[in-house]
Amino acid sequence: MATIPLGTFLFQRIHQLGIDNIVGCPGDFNMTLLDHIFNVEGLNWIGFCNELNAAYAADGYGRTRHGLPGVVVTTYGVGELSAINGVGGAFAEHVPLLHIVGTPARPEMEYKMWMHHTIPSSADFDNPDHHAYMRMSAPVRCCSALLDNVDTLASEIDRVLETIYHRSLPGYIFVPLDIVMAPVPVSKLETPVRLAVTNPDPEADDMLAIKILDAIYASKKPVILADILARRHMSRKLVMELVNQTKFPSFSTDLAKGFVDEDSPYFAGQYNGRLSLPGVAEAVEDSDLVLNIGPIISDSNTGGFTRFIDDKHLIILHPAYVKVFDERYDDVHFLPVLEKLMKRLDPSKLPAARSVESLNIGEPVEVKSAADISTSYFYRYIMSNFIKPYDNVFAESGTAQYGINDSKFPHSVNFTTQLYYSSIGFALPAALGACIAQREIEQQNLGPKGRVVLFEGDGSSMMTIQELATITRNGFCPTIFLINNSGYTIERAIHGPHARYNDICPDWKYLELFKTFGAPEDSYYCKKVSTRAELESLIESEEFKACDGKKARLIEVVMDKLDIPWRLSAQVKQMSEHTKKWFYDYSKKMGEEPREI
Amino acid sequence: MATIPLGTFLFQRIHQLGIDNIVGCPGDFNMTLLDHIFNVEGLNWIGFCNELNAAYAADGYGRTRHGLPGVVVTTYGVGELSAINGVGGAFAEHVPLLHIVGTPARPEMEYKMWMHHTIPSSADFDNPDHHAYMRMSAPVRCCSALLDNVDTLASEIDRVLETIYHRSLPGYIFVPLDIVMAPVPVSKLETPVRLAVTNPDPEADDMLAIKILDAIYASKKPVILADILARRHMSRKLVMELVNQTKFPSFSTDLAKGFVDEDSPYFAGQYNGRLSLPGVAEAVEDSDLVLNIGPIISDSNTGGFTRFIDDKHLIILHPAYVKVFDERYDDVHFLPVLEKLMKRLDPSKLPAARSVESLNIGEPVEVKSAADISTSYFYRYIMSNFIKPYDNVFAESGTAQYGINDSKFPHSVNFTTQLYYSSIGFALPAALGACIAQREIEQQNLGPKGRVVLFEGDGSSMMTIQELATITRNGFCPTIFLINNSGYTIERAIHGPHARYNDICPDWKYLELFKTFGAPEDSYYCKKVSTRAELESLIESEEFKACDGKKARLIEVVMDKLDIPWRLSAQVKQMSEHTKKWFYDYSKKMGEEPREI
Repeated sequence: MATIPLGTFLFQRIHQLGIDNIVGCPGDFNMTLLDHIFNVEGLNWIGFCNELNAAYAADGYGRTRHGLPGVVVTTYGVGELSAINGVGGAFAEHVPLLHIVGTPARPEMEYKMWMHHTIPSSADFDNPDHHAYMRMSAPVRCCSALLDNVDTLASEIDRVLETIYHRSLPGYIFVPLDIVMAPVPVSKLETPVRLAVTNPDPEADDMLAIKILDAIYASKKPVILADILARRHMSRKLVMELVNQTKFPSFSTDLAKGFVDEDSPYFAGQYNGRLSLPGVAEAVEDSDLVLNIGPIISDSNTGGFTRFIDDKHLIILHPAYVKVFDERYDDVHFLPVLEKLMKRLDPSKLPAARSVESLNIGEPVEVKSAADISTSYFYRYIMSNFIKPYDNVFAESGTAQYGINDSKFPHSVNFTTQLYYSSIGFALPAALGACIAQREIEQQNLGPKGRVVLFEGDGSSMMTIQELATITRNGFCPTIFLINNSGYTIERAIHGPHARYNDICPDWKYLELFKTFGAPEDSYYCKKVSTRAELESLIESEEFKACDGKKARLIEVVMDKLDIPWRLSAQVKQMSEHTKKWFYDYSKKMGEEPREI
Repeated sequence: MATIPLGTFLFQRIHQLGIDNIVGCPGDFNMTLLDHIFNVEGLNWIGFCNELNAAYAADGYGRTRHGLPGVVVTTYGVGELSAINGVGGAFAEHVPLLHIVGTPARPEMEYKMWMHHTIPSSADFDNPDHHAYMRMSAPVRCCSALLDNVDTLASEIDRVLETIYHRSLPGYIFVPLDIVMAPVPVSKLETPVRLAVTNPDPEADDMLAIKILDAIYASKKPVILADILARRHMSRKLVMELVNQTKFPSFSTDLAKGFVDEDSPYFAGQYNGRLSLPGVAEAVEDSDLVLNIGPIISDSNTGGFTRFIDDKHLIILHPAYVKVFDERYDDVHFLPVLEKLMKRLDPSKLPAARSVESLNIGEPVEVKSAADISTSYFYRYIMSNFIKPYDNVFAESGTAQYGINDSKFPHSVNFTTQLYYSSIGFALPAALGACIAQREIEQQNLGPKGRVVLFEGDGSSMMTIQELATITRNGFCPTIFLINNSGYTIERAIHGPHARYNDICPDWKYLELFKTFGAPEDSYYCKKVSTRAELESLIESEEFKACDGKKARLIEVVMDKLDIPWRLSAQVKQMSEHTKKWFYDYSKKMGEEPREI
């Protein structure tokens, strides 16, 4: 029986899915495994400066390859734990990600050998606890396999890959050092990995689709409300078909901006509870049928818990359940149901849709700024034109993720902001991960050319800045707008506008970063703009345009440190009013003396 | 009853210990807490570029303040998890560290409100799991307190501070947002925090001390073998008294280099199993009484498990137990025992000690290099003279931590290398933490002026490089030798000397880093040396000397990418022979076909 080493099998199997790049950092428990990447034709290794950044990039990759996980390899313990916050973000926001960890050999673990990179057990300082790290990542993964049995290597790997795909969540594969060369039958490569999202009972899916369609046919003022899990669980094509066939007023959320094409005649706005544009909340909440696909009902995605949709008008399509008014079906993934629904949809039975115009949606608030370039102006007037169809747009947690909602996107923008998990520093390496994915998409002729555009803050950039080096080292050409607003402006908006802890290291020479990080002179373009005239003339300049897709572009945009997007101010106000009340009620309940919060 | 807010109490209590600086990053769940730092006179906030770096710095602080923990504040989830690998290193190597996490308010947690920064429970995708992060850090802490009960705030804080001090390990305090202003009686500040290392039964300590002394008196060829937990658990003064009074040949380990003063007439070398200098292993292993204080018996600290000390000659003093030959006493901290022992020591009963000269300890191997500046030359001849008493020396995991063992240190060097946990990227922020601690030591007149000297690799520097900005922002003046050897040379030594995964981003302009990171021109001094002549003339130059303690100095030292310290080569050879055998035996035991590893 012909065999190949486990290491080669693992990476071959990953490559079979269409994944051409693996990211991470080497370490002595994973290097013999890394060797096998180079045994797989067409598979490439991209080394990162550190493991957290590599995990963020794997997340960004997963958000761009739609269904395929980013694959990050780290070494036992030290690298593994450095990456864990990146994995946490992918878990929170349903991004497929595979974290492969090279561990000590099986005998070293079984005999509790005191290897470096271990920690002792708290209860037993005589012995290292070789399983502690595996326990630590359990809350941020949907599945894992410790490859310690030579008889089940192939099936365990397939189980993890299939589960990651099906659930669109992170999974772990732990590879002991002594298993890398274990033989796996070559024939195991012949059966394809089963990449499918199915439910156990197709007839139940059908029944549910009919039930939902009946509700739709019977409705008078239906709306579609598409949220981020709809994007994560690969339903965009279906949802846009639904929008186009029903012509119902259709909404995204702030997490899912751009998911419903914003140039569609049926796109009515972003619903974010009471913090939406005027008219939006009314249109959604007055509806007698809200078809809510893939919601994450978190504070910042519901206008600070001001999403008021009556359950009796609400249908939820979720990867873990489907809910039709007061009936809930657990462990049903919405995707097969939506597929059936689209097949059965009879346009002649649909109610007449309200036109978007009839909803009278208002305009964003214009916020004045002490600086010439204001957030309002930048996103609403300049970026609405700058962003193109098929762009992969990343807005860092901070003012960018609130400000960008004033931009009107063209169709087919793949937008990411970590509005729920909100780990600052994420966006820069995640955008690099998107560069990797986008290159694969183009090389494999899977979709149109799309740029990577990043809106990054100065404070957040400092968290993960070294990966600028990885960008140019690998010839990627994203466009980075680095908002220099002298500190953590989002934090200033929330608390302590002038507090010292919201200041950051001053006077970074952002335009020198690429050069200092060793980028070849012709690999990047940097410019600083402090006025509207400078920004507008830059955007129109031949020099800037000529670099598009040819060089990494970093534009430092000077804004005022207290220029706070209106949505952010409103969110903070809303949450602060809510929390004051909750805190007071709760401390009363606990029998505590009333106090200032 | 006069009260102060919990936030103020917490930081006041920390400041009472003698801690003047808190490190970390702001986030919306910790900012109201951070405000209270500024309510405590003499307490200062040092913001970092990211949380992992801040945790590393807290570790470096703890290694320098000898007993006092570094205090790092992060925000819930995202910041907390980013820091976790730094905490893991402190846990592995017994460094006191306090990680304060600002969490959502109690009602938000109790009612499972879907706040940002949360993750859902794997088993219940309907609700966030507000306790997941607390579970994740459990394996890397010795104690924790979730401050959710207003009646026990002061006692819970004191319990954590006392346990951290007693166990010299990390602990966590979780501060819900709505508890920051809860009242704590001012009177609680009057009882000092009980910083003491005691055992439950002082008479048993006495009995043990006598037993050990009797063994010492009866021995013929005793040696002292001091390891890193002796330093971590504050026994240096006692151990040096023991060395000086007994005059026994005394050894450190590679983890504990410099702990026994290397200019002492009784210092005989570093014991690292078969990988020690010639004569060392014989001297230790032929001894009829090895007094082993504070061992970590990990692979790289035992010459790849070639520490062969017969149990019948071995006394171990450990923070979790004391072992006298075949008798083991659990839950006995060695420190009170050692104190008793020193009080009872009767020099007239001691056996005559062998002289160090009589042990015929050999010299380090000279390794040739393709570059003019070799590792052997650099550490043995140049750094032996450069390092001064009271210096805080950090050697990054990599060639530095192996090469530096060829340096002969003067007395009272506080040396750190993470030879056990080995998280690359640690050393730079840890050295910054030492700068913070050393400044406190000098300002509080607790000890002599001491420099911070860092030996950093190029690959590891990229992991955490942004904190150079924090160094100059706060006016610290460490000396950094940045070894530019074109990649992960320690990994090349272990596997894949020419593998692409051991290459790093090329052509960084190390001399431009401070400038690019906004350092004022007069705050730093940078120079690159590629030849011995350049290095020697630099070290002797007035310009370089004039900056000592006045500016941050960064010296880029060009070495060859395959210049591997002899100890590292020997370690790799030793481990590779061992592991081959273990792997083979284990796979045989598992009934697997024999295979290449």
